[in-house]
Amino acid sequence: MTLIDGKAIAQQVRAEVRDEVAAWVAQGHEPPGLATVLVGDDAASAIYVGGKQKASNEVGIRPFDLRLPQDASHDEVRATIHELNANPAVNGILLQLPTPPQVDGPALTTEIDPRKDVDGLTPISTGLLSKGLPGLRPCTPSGCMELLRRHDVQLEGAEAVVVGRSDLVGKPISAMLLAANATVTTCHSRTRDLAEVCRRADVLIAAVGVPELIKGDWIKEGAVVIDVGMNRTPEKLAGDVEFDSAVERASLITPVPGGVGPMTIAMLLRNTLEAAKAAA
Amino acid sequence: MTLIDGKAIAQQVRAEVRDEVAAWVAQGHEPPGLATVLVGDDAASAIYVGGKQKASNEVGIRPFDLRLPQDASHDEVRATIHELNANPAVNGILLQLPTPPQVDGPALTTEIDPRKDVDGLTPISTGLLSKGLPGLRPCTPSGCMELLRRHDVQLEGAEAVVVGRSDLVGKPISAMLLAANATVTTCHSRTRDLAEVCRRADVLIAAVGVPELIKGDWIKEGAVVIDVGMNRTPEKLAGDVEFDSAVERASLITPVPGGVGPMTIAMLLRNTLEAAKAAA
Repeated sequence: MTLIDGKAIAQQVRAEVRDEVAAWVAQGHEPPGLATVLVGDDAASAIYVGGKQKASNEVGIRPFDLRLPQDASHDEVRATIHELNANPAVNGILLQLPTPPQVDGPALTTEIDPRKDVDGLTPISTGLLSKGLPGLRPCTPSGCMELLRRHDVQLEGAEAVVVGRSDLVGKPISAMLLAANATVTTCHSRTRDLAEVCRRADVLIAAVGVPELIKGDWIKEGAVVIDVGMNRTPEKLAGDVEFDSAVERASLITPVPGGVGPMTIAMLLRNTLEAAKAAA
Repeated sequence: MTLIDGKAIAQQVRAEVRDEVAAWVAQGHEPPGLATVLVGDDAASAIYVGGKQKASNEVGIRPFDLRLPQDASHDEVRATIHELNANPAVNGILLQLPTPPQVDGPALTTEIDPRKDVDGLTPISTGLLSKGLPGLRPCTPSGCMELLRRHDVQLEGAEAVVVGRSDLVGKPISAMLLAANATVTTCHSRTRDLAEVCRRADVLIAAVGVPELIKGDWIKEGAVVIDVGMNRTPEKLAGDVEFDSAVERASLITPVPGGVGPMTIAMLLRNTLEAAKAAA
């Protein structure tokens, strides 16, 4: 059994992005720009936004740090998004959710120019992914795919089982695995015999948000297990997979934390660079 | 075993649309409008377009029949699409494919206003379907779902297997079955043991375009089988399923022809009515 070191792979991706940004700038281009829009003063949101700013800086991406007051109107936030859409120095736009109640954050997200949708979560980005057309892909599922790629996991013809059907992870990773020629089964809370379906998986993606829902004996001998879950329990930060028993059967598995988690920001930086290149 | 009579169900849907259109007009609204855009003089395309015009007329939908010459430029066709986007009497727009080589038909399709995309095939419509957001859904997979609904097929928790991953049928019907709470497996040419995967299916959708690829003994006893295939062989019009042996096992099955086929135009008419209601 091999542990997938998401922290190390994320560092590697970030180093690659840093080198590519430097080469891009050396060619005479402006550095890629990533704008974060934070409305109000939620402490957790401020920490997330700060993390993205810091990560951008580290790889040479120019951060644009937009902050609007807690009582900003929907139209004010909308105007900010549209200004960023029009600003050629900005290649990626993130509207930090949740927004205060007077601002319809999810609706405003759909007004981000698809070419700057570095979160890859607008309907048009979702459609481009489904159709296999060029576009920006959502960061967390891209991160999972990157982990599989770096470990040379054979996806063509593999039975892939995705547990969870969120817009954020389950659905897009199902689309990505299908594009990689896996036979893909998507499961969820209404799946009749989840254990049995999981036992078919050569590649199992757990993205359901229930601590240790997936038991070790649901894992096929030699399977690859990617655990996207991050569930705070009284004792620890638990994944969706019962790790201690799953390691007995998996050939390759992500720990929680230190597996998928670190990949999200790394892929966000990569998306921002790709968006800048596509815009040039 | 019960045969699914797609012809009768399509007639039923068309009669319902006709009654709803009449009620809509009686409420003082303009009749819904469906525009077809035909570039050049391909005989088969002219027949398709004529069929849609005729079907529209029969249910009280106003047809707009736009024809451009074989040598029309990309920009001329584009201008026509944009005029139709701006015309409030037009609720649905169909650009008949294929177009002559100087016109990039697929690219122009994406310029159809998503609210008028009654084929449901633009990236944004695809994304809205994936996310479960309101939008226009593609006609053939919608027709399959309608057949299942009219026969009260239980989809929640069912194992659904979709053979084929086209943008036209395989992928959207996978998304629709998932939204209906089935456990969905999507298969394709790289699937390792297609027979074995098909044998799991409570509901099997065949949309792969290979005559009689799916053998009778791949059908689980009592399964529901929807055959989207329409393959011209020297002897007959064949589905993707070996019908004569599949009927021995299926509880419910579509014939070819007379199964899914007639549903496509019926659902197109329904989409046009829905688009008119959403625009009012």
